[in-house]
Amino acid sequence: MNRAELTEMIVAAKIAGGISWADVADRVGLSKEWVTAACLGQMTLNADQAAIVCEIFDLPDDAMPVLQTVPYKGSLPTAVPTDPLIYRFYELVSVYGTTFKELIHEEFGDGIMSAIDFRMNLEREPDPAGDRVKITMSGKFLPYKSY
Amino acid sequence: MNRAELTEMIVAAKIAGGISWADVADRVGLSKEWVTAACLGQMTLNADQAAIVCEIFDLPDDAMPVLQTVPYKGSLPTAVPTDPLIYRFYELVSVYGTTFKELIHEEFGDGIMSAIDFRMNLEREPDPAGDRVKITMSGKFLPYKSY
Amino acid sequence: MNRAELTEMIVAAKIAGGISWADVADRVGLSKEWVTAACLGQMTLNADQAAIVCEIFDLPDDAMPVLQTVPYKGSLPTAVPTDPLIYRFYELVSVYGTTFKELIHEEFGDGIMSAIDFRMNLEREPDPAGDRVKITMSGKFLPYKSY
Amino acid sequence: MNRAELTEMIVAAKIAGGISWADVADRVGLSKEWVTAACLGQMTLNADQAAIVCEIFDLPDDAMPVLQTVPYKGSLPTAVPTDPLIYRFYELVSVYGTTFKELIHEEFGDGIMSAIDFRMNLEREPDPAGDRVKITMSGKFLPYKSY
Amino acid sequence: MNRAELTEMIVAAKIAGGISWADVADRVGLSKEWVTAACLGQMTLNADQAAIVCEIFDLPDDAMPVLQTVPYKGSLPTAVPTDPLIYRFYELVSVYGTTFKELIHEEFGDGIMSAIDFRMNLEREPDPAGDRVKITMSGKFLPYKSY
Amino acid sequence: MNRAELTEMIVAAKIAGGISWADVADRVGLSKEWVTAACLGQMTLNADQAAIVCEIFDLPDDAMPVLQTVPYKGSLPTAVPTDPLIYRFYELVSVYGTTFKELIHEEFGDGIMSAIDFRMNLEREPDPAGDRVKITMSGKFLPYKSY
Amino acid sequence: MNRAELTEMIVAAKIAGGISWADVADRVGLSKEWVTAACLGQMTLNADQAAIVCEIFDLPDDAMPVLQTVPYKGSLPTAVPTDPLIYRFYELVSVYGTTFKELIHEEFGDGIMSAIDFRMNLEREPDPAGDRVKITMSGKFLPYKSY
Amino acid sequence: MNRAELTEMIVAAKIAGGISWADVADRVGLSKEWVTAACLGQMTLNADQAAIVCEIFDLPDDAMPVLQTVPYKGSLPTAVPTDPLIYRFYELVSVYGTTFKELIHEEFGDGIMSAIDFRMNLEREPDPAGDRVKITMSGKFLPYKSY
Amino acid sequence: MNRAELTEMIVAAKIAGGISWADVADRVGLSKEWVTAACLGQMTLNADQAAIVCEIFDLPDDAMPVLQTVPYKGSLPTAVPTDPLIYRFYELVSVYGTTFKELIHEEFGDGIMSAIDFRMNLEREPDPAGDRVKITMSGKFLPYKSY
Amino acid sequence: MNRAELTEMIVAAKIAGGISWADVADRVGLSKEWVTAACLGQMTLNADQAAIVCEIFDLPDDAMPVLQTVPYKGSLPTAVPTDPLIYRFYELVSVYGTTFKELIHEEFGDGIMSAIDFRMNLEREPDPAGDRVKITMSGKFLPYKSY
Repeated sequence: MNRAELTEMIVAAKIAGGISWADVADRVGLSKEWVTAACLGQMTLNADQAAIVCEIFDLPDDAMPVLQTVPYKGSLPTAVPTDPLIYRFYELVSVYGTTFKELIHEEFGDGIMSAIDFRMNLEREPDPAGDRVKITMSGKFLPYKSY
Repeated sequence: MNRAELTEMIVAAKIAGGISWADVADRVGLSKEWVTAACLGQMTLNADQAAIVCEIFDLPDDAMPVLQTVPYKGSLPTAVPTDPLIYRFYELVSVYGTTFKELIHEEFGDGIMSAIDFRMNLEREPDPAGDRVKITMSGKFLPYKSY
Repeated sequence: MNRAELTEMIVAAKIAGGISWADVADRVGLSKEWVTAACLGQMTLNADQAAIVCEIFDLPDDAMPVLQTVPYKGSLPTAVPTDPLIYRFYELVSVYGTTFKELIHEEFGDGIMSAIDFRMNLEREPDPAGDRVKITMSGKFLPYKSY
Repeated sequence: MNRAELTEMIVAAKIAGGISWADVADRVGLSKEWVTAACLGQMTLNADQAAIVCEIFDLPDDAMPVLQTVPYKGSLPTAVPTDPLIYRFYELVSVYGTTFKELIHEEFGDGIMSAIDFRMNLEREPDPAGDRVKITMSGKFLPYKSY
Repeated sequence: MNRAELTEMIVAAKIAGGISWADVADRVGLSKEWVTAACLGQMTLNADQAAIVCEIFDLPDDAMPVLQTVPYKGSLPTAVPTDPLIYRFYELVSVYGTTFKELIHEEFGDGIMSAIDFRMNLEREPDPAGDRVKITMSGKFLPYKSY
Repeated sequence: MNRAELTEMIVAAKIAGGISWADVADRVGLSKEWVTAACLGQMTLNADQAAIVCEIFDLPDDAMPVLQTVPYKGSLPTAVPTDPLIYRFYELVSVYGTTFKELIHEEFGDGIMSAIDFRMNLEREPDPAGDRVKITMSGKFLPYKSY
Repeated sequence: MNRAELTEMIVAAKIAGGISWADVADRVGLSKEWVTAACLGQMTLNADQAAIVCEIFDLPDDAMPVLQTVPYKGSLPTAVPTDPLIYRFYELVSVYGTTFKELIHEEFGDGIMSAIDFRMNLEREPDPAGDRVKITMSGKFLPYKSY
Repeated sequence: MNRAELTEMIVAAKIAGGISWADVADRVGLSKEWVTAACLGQMTLNADQAAIVCEIFDLPDDAMPVLQTVPYKGSLPTAVPTDPLIYRFYELVSVYGTTFKELIHEEFGDGIMSAIDFRMNLEREPDPAGDRVKITMSGKFLPYKSY
Repeated sequence: MNRAELTEMIVAAKIAGGISWADVADRVGLSKEWVTAACLGQMTLNADQAAIVCEIFDLPDDAMPVLQTVPYKGSLPTAVPTDPLIYRFYELVSVYGTTFKELIHEEFGDGIMSAIDFRMNLEREPDPAGDRVKITMSGKFLPYKSY
Repeated sequence: MNRAELTEMIVAAKIAGGISWADVADRVGLSKEWVTAACLGQMTLNADQAAIVCEIFDLPDDAMPVLQTVPYKGSLPTAVPTDPLIYRFYELVSVYGTTFKELIHEEFGDGIMSAIDFRMNLEREPDPAGDRVKITMSGKFLPYKSY
């Protein structure tokens, strides 16, 4: 069993069992953002977390070590995503990419926002004109230094 | 003069004059995120905004109508960005893309987060372990409906 | 069973059973455009719709939750489609893309035509010189706003 | 002067002069859809049409034969368009491509909708929930025949 | 069974049985060009033709409706073909593409040669310096018209 | 002056002077297919041919040796052509590529149709249902031999 | 069984049996270059050669006709090869490509070196500073001719 | 002046002056293969060689240091070359790539043929059936070693 | 069994058995860098090494000759890697590529650092501000020589 | 003046003046690795460093603010580099990418080696069998943490 097969198994079990990611996150005791990414094969679980996930999705025993192994990351089948929801995020990078760059450099100087020392939160923002998706991202600024 | 030439002119004037995007935003009276994107050729200014921008960057007269024309958007030279700062955002889409998808669908059902009816805020988050970049995004949820 | 396998199962059952999309749409009670897209793995059915589709195509029980799950959208195997019928639509985007852009901006200002709050109708237009395909698309205009 | 330079000249003159495509179309006496495409370097004008366009945009004399020459068509700089408005049309092809294919074949048999013997109309559709873009396309059906 | 699997089945049966395309075409009663394309998954057979093809290649019953269904066309695994014989045709398009364009426009004006209302003939042309492949193509000219 | 600049010069002169490729071919004394390809930078002229071409298009003296130099061939800006007329030829390769391969191998064995020892003829084929483009290609068959 | 499966079967049998290409070539009675290419699915064997190959690698009966069928050529999984040994040959084309072109045209005029009427020999060249790989290629020059 | 401009200058001077690569090589005193590559911007000349090349092509003084600077190598505008002569070499890599790999490994073990410690010779091979291009390549074998 | 299947088998056995690469390297008696690369299908083992690897991972008998066969190298599924850890190395090549080039040429002249006669060492570098990854690479300089 | 033009100006001045990167680094007072990258448009200089660089390369006044502005990074014209020296580094990523991944994860757990908090040193390693290029890289390990 490789990680891609395991992810497909989890997704199928989730659909078949009508399990929500929020419930999985509650039982694992971490954010729904991180737990979902982990179940989708992008993060590494520890033994306790893996055991809970195996129980929730009724996974076979050999899933345990696989969930605890660092996966080959990257969740999309094409460089430019075709799914409309995911494409909108790609579009934000395409349209606002140079804006991100200018404003972060203006505030912090040369460097990047870490995508590793990073956390995010995704929630519903009620709005009379139609509810909104609110995403808060927080990544450590890492400066380039001369040497 | 086309928009790409105008953007390059603005960037050169900004560098030469030591102008900050925050100052430009203050004088235009809007967020630094939107104003920077507009100056970088991704948004459309109205006449008043264009006049202020022309004055700040000392742009020639024929820049006025160009700034008020809807640009061909997309700020990056390659589909996968090479610049490390911008790449990190692409990496977030690559790693967390399916997570965004799962969690938004779980909360809202089938649909997308709009990248048009969208606003964002980028700020410094002080942290003793090293300051962080905090980005808050808000996009209207747009549901797919059957018909 | 994942969605791609389910779609292939539906297509095979449709061919084997000589079922028409118009009939499926009639029984589901929605437009043939939306119903076909849903059966081809691009839209999400509700429980009642899924039950009808399962019955029509004699699908196994575990197809029910899969049909009600939001799919990873994008129906084509390559970025530039090779199928001549589908390519003609890509060609329209290639040739008329900037025309769409100019005319929509002239009429509405900066923004887009939604591909989500969208419906369409495809019908035969009789013509003595050879019948024509008539497609009527209607998408909500979504304006970019400054903030 | 090649066609790309001429198109850029027209676009610049249009912006500088505040000319609308609807006005150009009125003076040429054809639809705004075809006239805009022609001015953007995708269609071929005859001598009378070229003369009107040259006058409207105050083009030099050597623009006359260029406007009457069949252009190398394709209006977009990349295979997958980056501009959000144009991308939405690409997304429709990506998501609905197989639906177009199924429904046209169901109605007409094997063949295509011509993108050459084709006309379209783009108009505002008032709607209390927000006005809509309405596009009506009509292309001759061309059947594949065995031989 | 999908069309790709069916095509592979036909090719295997043809090789195993030492069947020639010319024989298949004779029995179907159409040109070898069209019949070969149909057997390779590019054209749609009617019921009679499908029955003959099934008999020749000893195909299972469920091949019948598949052969009568319009296939997703495009016979090559890569955009630029790697097979030397097929590449030479791609090379002709690459080298002579603009020549085709100039000469057809010179003779017919703006428009295209139809690849749908199209037929071709491929034959041996005896030549003392080495026999030649002679291909005669005939496609209806389809003019662009203003509207 | 490089060959690309020279080609653009010839095309501009042709448009400005209303010169036809057929006329150029007549004066050069060869087929319009070869002469057009040569003028478009795909073939090599000898001194006499180059002199005639220079005179027809009123080219500067330093065009003479450039026209007699073997060009870097390939006339299209993208691997998959965007121009509808040229795309149709690419589509023929995509749809009929494996058919070409099967039939040529059936007739000749393993080998290719030469794209070098090759000639073609493009003419109008009158037809009451609409005139047709008729293209006759003849390429020497080159067999693979074991060694 | 298709050709790719057959090639994989041959490679596995070769590894398992410790068979050398030189031995295969000896028994087939042709050069090791051609025989290896043929076994790897790039050339077509005749009945006698196929029988020998089947015996050497202990292939099933249905391999016989497959080996005698012209394969879809192209032995590499990506357009730019990732394997270091094969990449070096690609690099030679990349670095020396224009040199090949200049020198062949200088010696022969416009035309190509045939990759069909082609043979090559690969041998060890002893050298005190480290043995060398010596490759001798010979391809017929094919001139472009005007017509 | 950068190296690409210098190469274009050399090529133009060569064409205008009717200079042959063989003559340049004679005067530089090295092989025509290396000298041509160097003049085309792929190799680095020493001061004496650069002086001779400057004299032959009548290059400006600032060409001297540029010719002595290591260039950014790679002589082709696209990853898959469009020029037929150069493509044939790419085709040899595509068709024979795995053959090169198998035979070199069989003779030498794991490693590569160097494309750096490499020399080649390109000559005319007279043949009554049509002269041939003979290319002899010699590259040092470099073994992979465990460590 | 092909090499890719064998690699997947090794990786699964390693995860299931909780085996570390350092242990494998110890038992093979070589560096962990080379041994890991070999187990991941990038290097060729000799008989003794293969026997040890087979024992450690409890591989079937037919794995022995496969491990001793030179693999088709290249360990990544896409040209630009999506995995964040591996991407950082690609980014170093992208950002520092021209710097590597300038400094190596300044020190050594025209040539390359061998990726074949190459060894490397990867270790933990303790640092109070957070431990660091230290990689030492050593590759033989191979000069281009004129000939 | 944009950064690309400035980089080309620096490179030209360096070649013309026979300046070495080691000298530039000495005068700037930092490592040759960082200084070269900065001069090639990949790093940001402070005012003092910029002044020194301007003096060394005799740059115009408006180069000063450009050198102090964060550049759009990425030094290579293509995703897969064509230059042999730079390609070898890409090849190391391709061949050893999964090895880097396995060994770093084994030593440190899930996370990456920073390409930002990174320094490197490139030096000559004398060796009787031919001198070697020795590169020492040191990047901070950044762990993924659950949240």
